[in-house]
Formats: sequence, structure tokens, C-alpha cells
Amino acid sequence: MSPTPDSAVRTVRTYIAGHRDAFLGDLAQWLRIPSVSVQPEHAQDVRDSARWLADHLAGSGFPVAEVWETDGGHPAVYAEWPSDDPDAPTVLVYGHHDVQPAALADGWATDPFEPVISDGRLYARGAADDKGQVLFHSLAVRAHLAATGRTAPAVHLKLLVEGEEEAGSPHFRALIERHHERLAADAVVVSDTGMWSETTPTVCTGMRGLAECQITLHGPAQDIHSGSFGGAVPNPATTAARLAAALHDEDERVAIPGFYDGVAELTDEERKLIAELPFDEASWLASAHSGATHGERGHTTLERVWARPTAEVNGIAGGYQGPGGKTIIPASAVLKLSFRLVAGQDPDKIERAVRDWVPTRLPAGIRYEITFNGATRPCLTPLGHPALTAVARAMSTAFDGAAIRYTREGGSGPAADLQDVLAAPVLFLGISVPSDGWHAPNEKVELDLLFKGAEAGAHLWGELRGALSS
Amino acid sequence: MSPTPDSAVRTVRTYIAGHRDAFLGDLAQWLRIPSVSVQPEHAQDVRDSARWLADHLAGSGFPVAEVWETDGGHPAVYAEWPSDDPDAPTVLVYGHHDVQPAALADGWATDPFEPVISDGRLYARGAADDKGQVLFHSLAVRAHLAATGRTAPAVHLKLLVEGEEEAGSPHFRALIERHHERLAADAVVVSDTGMWSETTPTVCTGMRGLAECQITLHGPAQDIHSGSFGGAVPNPATTAARLAAALHDEDERVAIPGFYDGVAELTDEERKLIAELPFDEASWLASAHSGATHGERGHTTLERVWARPTAEVNGIAGGYQGPGGKTIIPASAVLKLSFRLVAGQDPDKIERAVRDWVPTRLPAGIRYEITFNGATRPCLTPLGHPALTAVARAMSTAFDGAAIRYTREGGSGPAADLQDVLAAPVLFLGISVPSDGWHAPNEKVELDLLFKGAEAGAHLWGELRGALSS
Repeated sequence: MSPTPDSAVRTVRTYIAGHRDAFLGDLAQWLRIPSVSVQPEHAQDVRDSARWLADHLAGSGFPVAEVWETDGGHPAVYAEWPSDDPDAPTVLVYGHHDVQPAALADGWATDPFEPVISDGRLYARGAADDKGQVLFHSLAVRAHLAATGRTAPAVHLKLLVEGEEEAGSPHFRALIERHHERLAADAVVVSDTGMWSETTPTVCTGMRGLAECQITLHGPAQDIHSGSFGGAVPNPATTAARLAAALHDEDERVAIPGFYDGVAELTDEERKLIAELPFDEASWLASAHSGATHGERGHTTLERVWARPTAEVNGIAGGYQGPGGKTIIPASAVLKLSFRLVAGQDPDKIERAVRDWVPTRLPAGIRYEITFNGATRPCLTPLGHPALTAVARAMSTAFDGAAIRYTREGGSGPAADLQDVLAAPVLFLGISVPSDGWHAPNEKVELDLLFKGAEAGAHLWGELRGALSS
Repeated sequence: MSPTPDSAVRTVRTYIAGHRDAFLGDLAQWLRIPSVSVQPEHAQDVRDSARWLADHLAGSGFPVAEVWETDGGHPAVYAEWPSDDPDAPTVLVYGHHDVQPAALADGWATDPFEPVISDGRLYARGAADDKGQVLFHSLAVRAHLAATGRTAPAVHLKLLVEGEEEAGSPHFRALIERHHERLAADAVVVSDTGMWSETTPTVCTGMRGLAECQITLHGPAQDIHSGSFGGAVPNPATTAARLAAALHDEDERVAIPGFYDGVAELTDEERKLIAELPFDEASWLASAHSGATHGERGHTTLERVWARPTAEVNGIAGGYQGPGGKTIIPASAVLKLSFRLVAGQDPDKIERAVRDWVPTRLPAGIRYEITFNGATRPCLTPLGHPALTAVARAMSTAFDGAAIRYTREGGSGPAADLQDVLAAPVLFLGISVPSDGWHAPNEKVELDLLFKGAEAGAHLWGELRGALSS
């Protein structure tokens, strides 16, 4: 594919520069709506936020812009701008309009819901996560039209902006299943992630999947005296500990039989690309609030968090929890485990593997229950996939021809539901950087990067049209 | 030593039978005082109970009967009846006058503080634990005088009856240290235990010791996202689990280096005597509310709970404890451990062994704190010790010449403090049986056994005089 003509690059830049102030005014308006989805007192704000966005998108030219109700949750926004070419591919952009809680008392320098621009940064809750990264698409699509002379986008463009992402997307799967025909797309572009750093523009290629379970172990019918009975009956707290300890072997590989079946091992090229990223262990540890790295032997830290499956103890509880001691053998103990999954793993198979494994680890006299809380599939768009290359090209154009590197996300997200329900590859376009402070006080977005994101978005539809049609 | 003359046996029995009703009337009076030490609203009742007992003992002939204050806790009772022979040995009887909480609503058939006699049993809170087993000594010493024609006991008799045993004896050690000169004794007789069963009279030879600690493990400075960081930093909940799992080897022996140093192994004779007890696993499991036995390889259940040291997880906690799941790596986790110790083990050495061991099990990036909550030494009077034989003889006389077998207690108690502070061997005289329901609704004492206890007590002072003087 040919490089983007300089004229198009210039037109996009000029268009965005010319609409910069108006865009920031709109974004500030939206950021003033405290759409905190986890706080019931902000339910109307989340609703107002959805209404604001639908109105904004309609005003930006989207022929369709609707508020979609969820079943008892916060509303989402759906918008559509069909291409003028009926044969064009369809792309669905995903983002969210709800935000994390924020209060001055948490350590904000300014009111989190009164946006402030300072030193080229816009400070507000939601500036980066995710209102800024949603809204740049409304500027981007108009820049795209300006640069191409089109009256409609090069792809059938759809936007789905949910209102419950910060609350764990409890109604998202049902929502997209209900609307799967209208949401049908050839690719999904998730606009809710970030880049490696200000100076290293990157494209994310996938997220890990997730399986979560709770295992309850029952021993004595009631707490019993550890003097009278200690050493002679099985202790469910000890059993829980042994089960958690048995999750890993001495190489810190997950020791559950079958766990690694199907795992897509990193290729040499993938490992090389990851190794080339300017990784600084000290600053990574600072971001992890941790004193040391630790994990599967034979893999680097980035490989471990991006491309290797894990088993983690999220919670463990059994017996006496108060001050001092209490000499009991507890009646029960609970383990909360989560497994991060990578391409090639299936949460249903992992569930079966765990269910098969647990009873093999229990002594006589310990009964158990196990429940799985739900699952998220991993998603990964392999290096070399034309749609991924299209995103990288759009980013490179925005970043003055810079080489675009590839990252992954260790977390799991509703992107996987879109991948599942729509059977479409998931791509990621994000310009946030680690210093933006997602979920933290003084969240901000770098204005330069925000407009680079709009530039990349403006170039993306032409790139994807070529990639998805080929 | 010669057997107790039949005449003495008969006189003791006649004396006790003649004073049976008066004794039961006194005991009922005392049982009506709800001396529940753990419930602040009963503080005055515990005080009234102490006063009642001191008055009763004075009325029974004890020349000294005092209420002893503790430093901010419930009062104890101290009484003394010196022998008419200044060279006689001194024996201190230990018991307690406080009781466990009890309420009709817990499942009592009758008011727990309104004693009822039915079918040869006396039902009331404290009937067996421990008022009945304390009070029989006031009857026993008078029967002893009647049978021997003495005007004072064959030994210098002391009684110490504390008021906080059910609350964990928080001021007991300080109390006996303060009064150690007045409490000085050649032997301690603990009157707060039981026998194997109605048909198998036994004497307890010792109790296990105890060391308790809490280990707090710190990982990330705050809970962190298990998606972003999972698999790449040490998880303190996993570390806690691994530490707990590493407490035992595959033979269920405690794997802390040095833990077994000095342990008094069971002799063949001791093992044989334990094996001869009519142990019924099903009913033992029922009493343990457990579905299976489990423990150190090569030892029977009774050996495990009586004569083998243990490590138990009393509590474990880390990370998310609420409903559902939360995908975090927790900032910290806590382990509460207790170690039961047997003769030859020293809680201070165990503390050092644990403190040495913990850091060897932690990965880089996990910090820890460890605190020990206090310790109790094990106590054991070896088979063949003259004082132990004296107790067995007194019991055998009361039980019509029955063979007396030996038991131990798996728990730990203030007896060990008496052993420590007074440097005296600890003996046990108890007639309660497992069905008596200590700490449970419908606590009772078998009246036949209660008066056998009084008989044994009446014979004990002569037996001990011989044993301790020899």
C-alpha cells in the first residue's frame, strides 16, 4: 500500500489545528459531567453523559446517534456513519463514557470535574480514560472527510460507547448480544488503551483473557480447639494454603495439568520486538508498587505480563482474623483465584482443568465447592495481520513517520466480548501514556498526543478500508 | 506403700454419703451465680462467686480463705489449711470459679443457672467445668479428716481458684508471680480436667505447650491490578500460602529446622498404654466435628493429639474477601500460626526456630513482620513418678480398686504457669467425662463420679504425703 500523501497529512493537521479550541471546549463540557458509574448518586450524570455524547455525535454529522439502554444498568451510546461506498468494510469503535470516582480529597490539585489546561496537559477525571480518547474520533472523522474530499467515511463507521466499563461492564455482553446485527463489523477498534510512552508510539496487539473462581474448603463442622484436636484432623486453612502453593511449580509455571494446552508461544520475532522496547525495570517496579520482579522462569517481565498465562491468588481467608491469636482449627477456608489466559487458551477448558485438579489435591475429610465467576477470552491480532498494519501505518503517519512498535495488555476487557459476539478481529488505537494517571488523582491527557490520536484516527479509515478489503 | 485400709475407704464413703445433700445444696447455690468471665455485665457475679467460695471454704474449716484481686481482672480465691505436721509436704490445688457463657436460647433444656438434678446428673453451667470439681475438695478434705482422725490435713493444703480461666487467664501469671511465696508447693494438683469415660477411670499426666505467632507479609505498597502486573511480581497471599504449605513435610511432620530438637519421644510402654485405651475413631471424629483423621505419619490419633508437637494454621487472610472476585495482587497477607509443644520443647527455642525459618522461605520483594503472642510450656509427669502413682492410687481406691489408665491433654493451660513459677510437678485429678458438655449447652456432671472425685480427693492427701516425702 502506498504511503499517505503529504497533502492528506497536511490537510488533516490543518483541519485539526483549526478545530482544536472548539474540540477542547466540547471535551471540557463533557468532562464536567461526573459520570461515575460505580456511585449510585451519579446515575443521572451517567445518563446525562450518554445524552451529551449522542447529541455531540449527531451534531458532528453522524446520521445515527442513539442512547441505548441496558437492562437495569447505565446507558450506552451507539452512533453510525455509513460509508458512501456500500461495499466498504465496517469498523466498530469501542470506548466508554463512564469514569472512575474522583474527589478533591483524594489528592487532586484541582476539581476533577472542572477541566484545567496547564503546560500542554488537560487535567480532569476521564481526560484520558476514556472521554478524551472517545471524543477525538468525532474530530478525526471530520478531518478524514476534509482530507479525502469525501462526504462520508471510507468505511462504514460505527461507535459503541458504554457507560459501565469502570463498573466491570456487567450488562455489556447482553447489550451487544441483543444488538449484534446492528453492531456487525469487519473489525473492532478499541479506543481505550495507551502507548508505551510519549517518545515510543506503539500499537497494542491483544489482551489476556481471564477465568476467575472461588474455592471453598470445608473441614470440621465448626471451628474446633487446636489443642484438643490439633495435629489429628485436616485443617481447611492449611489445605487452602497447600492448594494455593501447588498452583505453581518451582519454575513458577502453573502446575495444573492441561493448563498450557494450546498456548500460543511467543515467536522469536515477537520476543525480539518485546526485548527492543526501552524497558526500565525500576520505573516498571515503581508503577507496580513492588520491590522485585518474580515470575515464570525463562521469560522477561514484559513477556510475563503480556504473553504468558498466570494463576494468581486474589484472596485467601480462613479461620481467625482478629487481633492476637485464637487456637482453632477453622471450619472452612476460601480461595479466590484468577487465571490470565493468552491466545490459544479457552476459559472453558481452563475451568475444566481446574475442576479436575482441585479434588486431586484434597485430603480425606475436606469437602469443597468451586464456582467460576465468569470468563473473558484472550484476544490477539497477530503481527503481520493487514488490519494491524493499517493501525500501525495510521499511527506512524500521525507520529511523523516514526517506527511503530507493538505492545500487549496484560489485563482483560470487554474487547474480548466484541471479538466473540461479532467474530471480528480487535484492534487498539490509543495515545494515553503511563503517566496519565488512570484511576488515580490528577488524571490528565497530553494535548499533543490527544491530537496525534485524532490524526491517527483520521488516517485509519482509509488504511483499514484497504486492509479489510484486500 | 500399703493399700488404703478398708476402714478408711468405708469411713470416707460414709462421710461423703452423709454430707451429700448438704454438699449438693451448697454447690447449687454457687452454680446459681452466673460467673461468666468473658461478659462484662457479669463482672459483679464473678466477684460474688469468689466471695461465696471464700466464705464456703472458711465455713468448711480452712483457716485461711481470701479473695485475691488481680490487676484489673476478675478476682481469684486462695485458701490454706496447714497440716498439723510442720514437716508435711505442701500441695496446691488449682481450679477456677468462672464459667463459660450460657443462655437458654443456645439450646439448654433448662435454665443454665438454675441447677436441676435428673437421672443422677446435675445440670448447670459450671457443674463439671469447674465448680463441681473445685467444690468436691471441700467435702474431700473433711472426709479425709474423718477417716484419719486428724484435725488438719496430712499435707499443707492450698487452693488457688482463679476467676478468668474461661477468658484465657490474662492475669494469672502475674497473680502467681506476685504471690509465689505463699503459693510455694511441692506439687500442684489441677482439678479441671476429666477422665477417659465413665467406665475407664484415668489420670492425666500432662498437657502440651503452646507458641503462637502472627506473620504479616507485605508485597506491593498497595493492591495492584492482577491483569497489568499478574505473573511478574511476588504475591504476598501466594507467599503466605506457600509458607503455610511449607510448615509440614510429606509425612506431616513439621518441617521447620530444629523443631523436633529435644522432643521426648514416646516410650514403647507409653505407646502401649495409649494403644490399650478403648479408642473409638467414629466417636472421636464426632467430637472433633470432622470427617477424617489426618496427621503425622507413624502415630495414632491419640499420640498425635497428646504427645506429638504440631503446627496449625489458625487463621490466614489476604486480599479480597467479599462476594465474587476482584482481580488484584494484594498488598499484604497475614498468617496466624500456633505450635503445640511436648515435653522437651521450649517455646523460646521454637520462637527462634520459626524466626530463623520464615525469611528463608520468602522471595525477593516480600517484606515480613512476625510477632509472638505469648507461650505456654508443656508439662508432663512421667509414668512411674511417685506423685503420679499417688494420684492413681487415690483414684483406684475411689473406683473400687479399678486399674487406672493414663491420658494426656492436647491443650495447654495455666497449669504450665504453676509448674514454671512454683517449680513443682503438676498432677491432674479430674472426674468429668466427655459427655459432660464443657462449653456446650446442657453441661452436666455425673453425681456418682462427682462423689468418686471427692473420695479420690479424700485419699489423695495421705497418698501424696507418702509420695512427696519419700
